[in-house]
Amino acid sequence: MKHDKVKILDCTIRDGGLVNNWDFSVDFVKQLYKSLSEAGVEYMEIGYKNSPKLLKGADAGPWRFLDEGFLRDVIPQKSATKLSALVDIGRVDENDILPRKESLLDLIRVACYIQDVGKGLELVEKFHKMGYETSLNIMALSHVMENDLNEAFQEIKDSPVDVVYIVDSYGSLHLNDIDYLVSKFQRALPEKELGMHMHNNMQLAFANTIVGLEKGVTFLDASVYGMGRAAGNCNTELLVSYLKNPKYEIRPLLEAIENLMIPLREKVEWGYIIPYTVTGILNEHPRTAMALRNSEDKDRFVEFYDKLTSPESNYATKNHHSD
Amino acid sequence: MKHDKVKILDCTIRDGGLVNNWDFSVDFVKQLYKSLSEAGVEYMEIGYKNSPKLLKGADAGPWRFLDEGFLRDVIPQKSATKLSALVDIGRVDENDILPRKESLLDLIRVACYIQDVGKGLELVEKFHKMGYETSLNIMALSHVMENDLNEAFQEIKDSPVDVVYIVDSYGSLHLNDIDYLVSKFQRALPEKELGMHMHNNMQLAFANTIVGLEKGVTFLDASVYGMGRAAGNCNTELLVSYLKNPKYEIRPLLEAIENLMIPLREKVEWGYIIPYTVTGILNEHPRTAMALRNSEDKDRFVEFYDKLTSPESNYATKNHHSD
Repeated sequence: MKHDKVKILDCTIRDGGLVNNWDFSVDFVKQLYKSLSEAGVEYMEIGYKNSPKLLKGADAGPWRFLDEGFLRDVIPQKSATKLSALVDIGRVDENDILPRKESLLDLIRVACYIQDVGKGLELVEKFHKMGYETSLNIMALSHVMENDLNEAFQEIKDSPVDVVYIVDSYGSLHLNDIDYLVSKFQRALPEKELGMHMHNNMQLAFANTIVGLEKGVTFLDASVYGMGRAAGNCNTELLVSYLKNPKYEIRPLLEAIENLMIPLREKVEWGYIIPYTVTGILNEHPRTAMALRNSEDKDRFVEFYDKLTSPESNYATKNHHSD
Repeated sequence: MKHDKVKILDCTIRDGGLVNNWDFSVDFVKQLYKSLSEAGVEYMEIGYKNSPKLLKGADAGPWRFLDEGFLRDVIPQKSATKLSALVDIGRVDENDILPRKESLLDLIRVACYIQDVGKGLELVEKFHKMGYETSLNIMALSHVMENDLNEAFQEIKDSPVDVVYIVDSYGSLHLNDIDYLVSKFQRALPEKELGMHMHNNMQLAFANTIVGLEKGVTFLDASVYGMGRAAGNCNTELLVSYLKNPKYEIRPLLEAIENLMIPLREKVEWGYIIPYTVTGILNEHPRTAMALRNSEDKDRFVEFYDKLTSPESNYATKNHHSD
């Protein structure tokens, strides 16, 4: 069957947690896991495996600092849907992580910027030795110079990492950029599976994911109703509808949207919101737009655009967060 | 310059009128015309040129039954942005239409289903003789059989029509469908310019438009903030941001969104709304979803999906409206 190697990785809880500070109830996450399982989604990324010791924000919900004991209460019975967690360079304490056979997690994904690929691969190697499936998620690829990427490929080639992700952190990549990047990654890393994590600032997250998928990318990130930081991600329900594989069902996802996401979307926002469109178009981190949306000026789009595009602007700042 | 033959046709008032029953104030339309002019948009579709005598709905706003005298009050001074109007087969009284040199309109577009292409071309010929630029907009192409389309091409070839539009009325076409259809239209109608009018049910309106554009389609429909029936259209602001032509400016569009579209969106809805996604995925007219959204059950997505997919369903009905 066409696309039969494709795996959908739903990152609603992990990337969506960036919207609501991981304030999902246990019941919400249980219901979502059930829906994703029924829908045939292969992976659920249930949070971050960062260490509270290494990161401010201890007020965040438990999905930011996943604990194995807690996880066993949430998911007492695993379905065919595997579990994954994301870690950030410098924020994970490797001693927190059990060997895979003692863990509910199947896949550990390491997010890093291009300059930290070496550190990322060190972590990958440790998790690989502990028995996990691993991925390296290279963030902010729209800001990466070709020569740096080529150097990174050399390191990645020699690593045991299973999947290498193209991450469009700023939601600024177009269809032709994806076509170009996927071809480049495929030529450089023929032995690795590839993944895609897109953001929806320009309403291209789903379309870009299709472009990658049709070129042979096998790990596709998505989130239910698109929930994810700022403009959000590729929508899981759209991806399931596109893949003709009979193992997928959209109905459980519609149920999750109706029961979980619509009420949540009334409290917190993500999606096609103009300041995020602007940062996407300008190929910038969405943090300035997130700050705007948290202010009284949230709908003052023109002033925001003028600030970001003024030659005197020092509004844009450095990278910090994963994805 | 790449894409220098491309024309953006903004149909906010015409297609958006299907959302709010054409209840735009004169001031709203004046401001929008100014913004589109400053943005460098080539055409503004300012409404329908249907006849109130031939159509129920005389309570609709004036943009449904454009009158030349009225139009002169609204646009006393034309900019470089041309004006267009849409007509439906059987709803237009040709005697209502002045010769182009006495009219503010530049382009008249005829919308029809495949079985009415003959009638559509009769109208096109009359408008052509009156001096107008013309287009034939073939709706609901996702429901058209190949042999019917091939017959239509024979008629279109011999017509003076300037532009032939691919219309994705149900928002159900994917990137590969667009690739296929555009190639087919290009082979069959090498002398005609092609246009695209996409709907956003699956968040593909912009992406599909890009696919067409990159293959050589020159007339691109869009609407500001995506306003259009049901899920809406390709967003004018995204299209302007994509085209690198220096004549386009996004700032006036951000202004229009801030001042006009955000307040309007609080009163009426369009965009990524799950029942429209469902009809798009099922390749059906959105009318059942529109009815749902006007009912108390507006967020009962699963029940709606079950009704539409039940083998006993006679929920789906025939085509009626343009686009």
